[in-house]
Amino acid sequence: MSDILIILAEGFEEAEAVITIDVLRRLEFDVCLASLSDNREVVSSHNIKFIADETLNDCKDRDYRAIVLPGGMPGSANLRDNRTVIDTVKKANANGALVCAICAAPIVLSHAGILDNSKFTAYPGFEKYFNTPPLKDMVVQDGNIITGKGPGAAFEFAMKIAQALGKDPSAVAKGMLVC
Amino acid sequence: MSDILIILAEGFEEAEAVITIDVLRRLEFDVCLASLSDNREVVSSHNIKFIADETLNDCKDRDYRAIVLPGGMPGSANLRDNRTVIDTVKKANANGALVCAICAAPIVLSHAGILDNSKFTAYPGFEKYFNTPPLKDMVVQDGNIITGKGPGAAFEFAMKIAQALGKDPSAVAKGMLVC
Repeated sequence: MSDILIILAEGFEEAEAVITIDVLRRLEFDVCLASLSDNREVVSSHNIKFIADETLNDCKDRDYRAIVLPGGMPGSANLRDNRTVIDTVKKANANGALVCAICAAPIVLSHAGILDNSKFTAYPGFEKYFNTPPLKDMVVQDGNIITGKGPGAAFEFAMKIAQALGKDPSAVAKGMLVC
Repeated sequence: MSDILIILAEGFEEAEAVITIDVLRRLEFDVCLASLSDNREVVSSHNIKFIADETLNDCKDRDYRAIVLPGGMPGSANLRDNRTVIDTVKKANANGALVCAICAAPIVLSHAGILDNSKFTAYPGFEKYFNTPPLKDMVVQDGNIITGKGPGAAFEFAMKIAQALGKDPSAVAKGMLVC
């Protein structure tokens, strides 16, 4: 079982994604960056060009300990509207894997039908996309679901994922000068 | 005159670079990402593949309002050991442009000989590379030189650059949920 799958869609929020990848790779998790399209090149919401490690189609059939969805728009809408993403999220949730989303990306979890009985947070202004209101917290864990509120929550979001996967992130937090 | 040149060397600290780019592009600065090598593909310190907008050779002769050097290792050493980077930093400084470096990248400014009479900060452990000791602050501005201490200082570093270029970053800080 690989560790963590992070799905990058056109228009993803790059700071949320990169902070999370940076923290988790510093902690030596095996992190796979998958592009939503069949082209590994993905352009973020503020026009930075990335090359993912694989395409989602190439790695969707593997099992992961965690699925992570960066936010941003239109990245989050692109994730939500993709059948493979929804199936991947549902399968991970059914397997008891962590399902993690930040900023606008909790709309994907809502669309996958796995958020209705969970406490969660999301970027302010996205309340109408949920059946139950998000909490105001920067990061929320409820069972296997971890959500973050936006870019300024990304360090804490990543540390929470690490903790939920059994690693203590405090030395990395100190090394990154994150209080 | 273009706005901001950010130089990406193999092994650059990706969160420092991406947070800075994200903040400055949200503020509608024209930000050019230049690869140090003649190949626009650059791999960061935690193995994320980026495609820069241009190569440094293609854009080094233009004038910028600010030069920004992300930290990380070996990224900072790669910048320091490159003649074009040193010449670009010296020229920007002589023109009165902002010269900005974070984490280990202030070693580049020291090597270019522009740091000896300035207050600055740098990542802990790099003191031996400087003729005068760094301050302990997360971000320091002294005239046209802005330095940051590490990844956890990147939001503040970017906001300071924006302010020094005459824009108020408070709405973007609020939008990114950065306190």
